[in-house]
Amino acid sequence: MPDFQFSCPIPIDQYPHVLMAHGGGGKLMQQLIQKMFLPAFGNNGKPSTLQHDSALLKIPTELIAFTTDSYVIHPLFFPGGDIGSMAVYGTVNDLAMSGARPSYISVSFILEEGLPMKTLWNVVQSMRRAAMEVGVQIVTGDTKVVDKGKGDGIFINTAGVGIVEYPYAIAPQSIRPGDVILLNGDIGRHGIAIMAMREGLEFETTIKSDSAPVSNVVLELLKVGVTIHCLRDLTRGGLASALNEIAQTSGMAIQVDEGLIPVREDVRGACEILGFDPLYVANEGRFIAFVPQGKVEKALAILRSHNSDACGIGSVIGRSNRNMGLVTLQSQIGANRILDLLSGEQLPRIC
Amino acid sequence: MPDFQFSCPIPIDQYPHVLMAHGGGGKLMQQLIQKMFLPAFGNNGKPSTLQHDSALLKIPTELIAFTTDSYVIHPLFFPGGDIGSMAVYGTVNDLAMSGARPSYISVSFILEEGLPMKTLWNVVQSMRRAAMEVGVQIVTGDTKVVDKGKGDGIFINTAGVGIVEYPYAIAPQSIRPGDVILLNGDIGRHGIAIMAMREGLEFETTIKSDSAPVSNVVLELLKVGVTIHCLRDLTRGGLASALNEIAQTSGMAIQVDEGLIPVREDVRGACEILGFDPLYVANEGRFIAFVPQGKVEKALAILRSHNSDACGIGSVIGRSNRNMGLVTLQSQIGANRILDLLSGEQLPRIC
Repeated sequence: MPDFQFSCPIPIDQYPHVLMAHGGGGKLMQQLIQKMFLPAFGNNGKPSTLQHDSALLKIPTELIAFTTDSYVIHPLFFPGGDIGSMAVYGTVNDLAMSGARPSYISVSFILEEGLPMKTLWNVVQSMRRAAMEVGVQIVTGDTKVVDKGKGDGIFINTAGVGIVEYPYAIAPQSIRPGDVILLNGDIGRHGIAIMAMREGLEFETTIKSDSAPVSNVVLELLKVGVTIHCLRDLTRGGLASALNEIAQTSGMAIQVDEGLIPVREDVRGACEILGFDPLYVANEGRFIAFVPQGKVEKALAILRSHNSDACGIGSVIGRSNRNMGLVTLQSQIGANRILDLLSGEQLPRIC
Repeated sequence: MPDFQFSCPIPIDQYPHVLMAHGGGGKLMQQLIQKMFLPAFGNNGKPSTLQHDSALLKIPTELIAFTTDSYVIHPLFFPGGDIGSMAVYGTVNDLAMSGARPSYISVSFILEEGLPMKTLWNVVQSMRRAAMEVGVQIVTGDTKVVDKGKGDGIFINTAGVGIVEYPYAIAPQSIRPGDVILLNGDIGRHGIAIMAMREGLEFETTIKSDSAPVSNVVLELLKVGVTIHCLRDLTRGGLASALNEIAQTSGMAIQVDEGLIPVREDVRGACEILGFDPLYVANEGRFIAFVPQGKVEKALAILRSHNSDACGIGSVIGRSNRNMGLVTLQSQIGANRILDLLSGEQLPRIC
């Protein structure tokens, strides 16, 4: 990005911190929008839509995907990512889970009074880079400031609009007995990276979050004609919760094989120390795809070209008893156990 | 809404307050979604899209409007409204300001741990009523919970998708010399209602917020063929800031006549006590429309059928010096003064 300035465009000596007035609708808010948000998020010099109450967008299809997520992660910066890139990737990934091409996102900040202006600028730059990487346009936004002690640095909401180019019903209701469940990489890194940082734990190597966009790999699968019955990213609640939600919505029985699920040794070790089960730990660049048997080889080849850990981890067995949905885990010693939703809170503020 | 239950669907004796686990991706979050959000926001019994990562929406036009706003208002409930209805109306109004028909919105909650469950339920019910009133569907959402002391009860983000049925360029760049500026009612009530409540001020009658949706009146104007060059709602920064933003973006000189701007007597009195200028006070159901002279009569008839205080308040004079944009106010004693953007923060957390 040689076209872009790297020093904070708001004079730090004059405004070292975010003030209530930066969200007040007056001169300071206008300065923040004009000097920081428009240059960073504006459409490469083209007239931006960010200055109107809403953005007008051309839609080339009859179907769009629409999603939203708020990001309250603590800390704001962590090994492998930060709240800014995560807020872009997370919403992009949610659109990808419908098979849509992520096209437009909105960005809404809730800033805490007293936030260092430099921190905001670093987050904004990270969002810019992430949006450019994914090819999504930031087209509309909002900024609010809350009193010191009534927020926590930065909360970000992103909503996204995706263009549905392949109008297949990619949804839990579409899964069928015999479908193979593919996973696009090792699990547990995001949650453990955050917890290790919060707890001040040090391992031989730093565990980095897996935070990444997955839209390109999903679109690649669709482009080469891989039939995908369902997709789900493995964020809050991890793999176990994603499997449970799909089983419950579809009424199907699902079985996965613990020995096939890739977990890095350091992540497994950290989970043992912290008392976590990696199956429930949040990821930010991992998803599962339900694919009919005949398309597995083709799909795996593509998934592995992005991440060599990608693999099949289980399959859909058939209708479950009373259509309640059921996930069983075959452990490495051969025993089966039911994999349930967690009752409590394992990892707060992980995204 | 005889079809709807009015008692809180989450057992209050068991969960009197929001817990961190209500945002954790496990059983409690699923209970909140299944028992509270889906019945309240679900599409009148039709299968809801709220359970997927993103919602799939049919778009009958080639152009959509897309907007977002976060709501951090304090207090959550105030005379004439609450954060829930405001979060629906505000985003609906932003879509209307592009001439779009508000069709779909997302709802994302950032809840503070310890929030009374009953408060959340009251806000959710208010959002349901507001969405039904406006005819907008809540199609996707998100819930995050932050630690006690790291939020302030409830923050809400809503993003909106509107269908553009009248593809006119309703934007500051479209205003022309001679355009008349119409205002759809009296100003200053929302901000003063909030401040009076915060300061514990009592007046003879309670000043109620003007919080209301304006999409229907805008669509009515468009339907009967009123040419609208620009629309802007008068939220943060009030009428003065909206006029300034439009003047600056268009490079035009705008003049308004103070004596024509309707401000209720009690609002004027409260402004004097609190030291506010009603021209800068936030509204939540007021907008200005820039309309060519020939359409003023038709437009005013429609605006007045909704609010008898609607009136013309000024006009576009012509290009401003060096295209910088300029707003002048003709005072009631005939003197002209420049109406500028505010430098500081007048009313924090008003929306």
